[in-house]
Amino acid sequence: MYEELARRCLDGEVRAVARFISLLEDGDRQAYNAMSAFASTIGHAQIVGITGPPGSGKSTLTDKLIGYFRSKEKKVAVIAVDPSSPFSGGAILGDRLRMQGHAVDPGVYIRSLASRGQLGGLSKATAFALRVLEAAGYEIVIIETVGVGQSEIDIVKVADTVVLVSVPGLGDDIQVIKAGIMEIGDVFVVNKADRDGADRVVREIRAMLETQAALKRGRSPSAGPDTLASRSIELLHHGQTGTQAAAPVEQTGLEDLPPVMKTVAETGDGVQELGACIVSQFEKARQNGALQERRLRSIKAQLKDIAAWQLMDRFADSGGEGRLKRLSEAVYLRKKDIYGAAKELTAALVKGEST
Amino acid sequence: MYEELARRCLDGEVRAVARFISLLEDGDRQAYNAMSAFASTIGHAQIVGITGPPGSGKSTLTDKLIGYFRSKEKKVAVIAVDPSSPFSGGAILGDRLRMQGHAVDPGVYIRSLASRGQLGGLSKATAFALRVLEAAGYEIVIIETVGVGQSEIDIVKVADTVVLVSVPGLGDDIQVIKAGIMEIGDVFVVNKADRDGADRVVREIRAMLETQAALKRGRSPSAGPDTLASRSIELLHHGQTGTQAAAPVEQTGLEDLPPVMKTVAETGDGVQELGACIVSQFEKARQNGALQERRLRSIKAQLKDIAAWQLMDRFADSGGEGRLKRLSEAVYLRKKDIYGAAKELTAALVKGEST
Repeated sequence: MYEELARRCLDGEVRAVARFISLLEDGDRQAYNAMSAFASTIGHAQIVGITGPPGSGKSTLTDKLIGYFRSKEKKVAVIAVDPSSPFSGGAILGDRLRMQGHAVDPGVYIRSLASRGQLGGLSKATAFALRVLEAAGYEIVIIETVGVGQSEIDIVKVADTVVLVSVPGLGDDIQVIKAGIMEIGDVFVVNKADRDGADRVVREIRAMLETQAALKRGRSPSAGPDTLASRSIELLHHGQTGTQAAAPVEQTGLEDLPPVMKTVAETGDGVQELGACIVSQFEKARQNGALQERRLRSIKAQLKDIAAWQLMDRFADSGGEGRLKRLSEAVYLRKKDIYGAAKELTAALVKGEST
Repeated sequence: MYEELARRCLDGEVRAVARFISLLEDGDRQAYNAMSAFASTIGHAQIVGITGPPGSGKSTLTDKLIGYFRSKEKKVAVIAVDPSSPFSGGAILGDRLRMQGHAVDPGVYIRSLASRGQLGGLSKATAFALRVLEAAGYEIVIIETVGVGQSEIDIVKVADTVVLVSVPGLGDDIQVIKAGIMEIGDVFVVNKADRDGADRVVREIRAMLETQAALKRGRSPSAGPDTLASRSIELLHHGQTGTQAAAPVEQTGLEDLPPVMKTVAETGDGVQELGACIVSQFEKARQNGALQERRLRSIKAQLKDIAAWQLMDRFADSGGEGRLKRLSEAVYLRKKDIYGAAKELTAALVKGEST
């Protein structure tokens, strides 16, 4: 049944794709095993990650980007990821997109994923859904996440091109958070750019990117990460341009910086340009080797994760829960320290002891 | 040296505490080992988690709560966690608090923690810092996080009492996210309650809590999590009260619901009441056994995590990186499927093979 299902996925059969992803989401181990059929299709799709704070209009932007890629006759799949909504089954994001009318287009597949409470479950499910969609012949796979926390960053890291969406009028707190995730962005978008302050946000992002790049070039042992953060934040507060702040170190060529685009997703303004930009950044990365390096790194991270999950399964299989319960109680009752108890657990796991 | 440092922590020496936490943060294994000295102090502090969206005024609230607990002559420690700011070293949150003047009070210790890029590193660092602070005799340990993503939830879960901070005037998106984390809240706070719409937010939170409780009681196989989410969201959109929505199922006693408090942290309004409420919720949980259950669950989760980290160390020690690199390349070149490669990795780890 699993081999058959995998074959039908490779044939691009939508129902098989949906079924396979559900099995993977449920942690079905035979489904994982059957993924060996997809070994030859890895890397076939361009994976676009879209993230940004709630309210920045990511769903509308995703909707318009689907339209863009369809106009280029690409098959498009969307994975809408909602890590913080264990209740909703992630239906909210996906439904927003489906409502736009792409549901009737056979060249578009939209899938929602939500946390089912397991640690790391969501990035696992996303990474695997990606492999299935790639195998099914989707040429563009968009991963859209809500929010900009660490789990969103982890999820979106598997993308070939990461689009960071901003919006005018969010508080300083949001800006500070953004400072922490600037590094993962390949393309920056200021959406709702018809609002007041859009140009200011563009300038701020550019300034932060310039500072970041300048510091990277001129980094001395004393110019560590703390310096970068404080300088970026200083920049925001004093409204200086990046060039001024970057003055003490060698100036960075602007051509190295990720593009900062303006869009109004509602009206479609700037979406063509954004779509073209996403494609050209991808091509650039392919040509200069950055893409290969990134994909290798992503595979490496996934491999490590899968191995860890397999160990957890092994743990569960060998009756580890009973041992875990006894050790936890001993720690709670102050009879054992937590580190020593963990050592016992590890030793038992490696030996494959069952009690 | 490590045993000496641990002993000085147990004596409440601030410099030793700071040093020990830094060592743990850096992943120093001898420091982990030395934590066995703290086995007898586990559970000595009341741990308060404070989380909520950026801009909800959590730092000011934390500042005022420090004042409250100091007025009750409790020693207070704060762990300010900033998962999404790998750059800043988490200095931002901590600095905000230190600037309030608590820095000169020997009964207050404020510590910033930020992600240093390792997976799960931050919840690990937080959990261990907690053990050190507890050992050093702090009676209240406040964990404050930025944002409301999955990683923040994971971090704040180790708390005995979780305070969820809301604020009037955030968009619907925020409300939707909140629906996903309602379950972890023991006390709900609407801060900046002098703003328009504060009472509306209070009503919305109460309605969601009531729906949640009613569904939990009356849950049938068909009334799963999806139903809860859609009903909560429906509620928000139609402005109905929770009682109406809960009508089909048995009405829940209001005394079971977590309290929803209003504060204006800037002026201190409502902070006394909030502080008293946090303490009384803690006492209630201790008396009805919920606290014990929760701490046991938290120890269990930590034990599992520590065991997994120990395995990762074992992996690194046994030269696993070389094998990982070779397997990743094979997957990238489509010579191996990722699941099969992970199996090889797991097998090697368990056997302790070095190449």
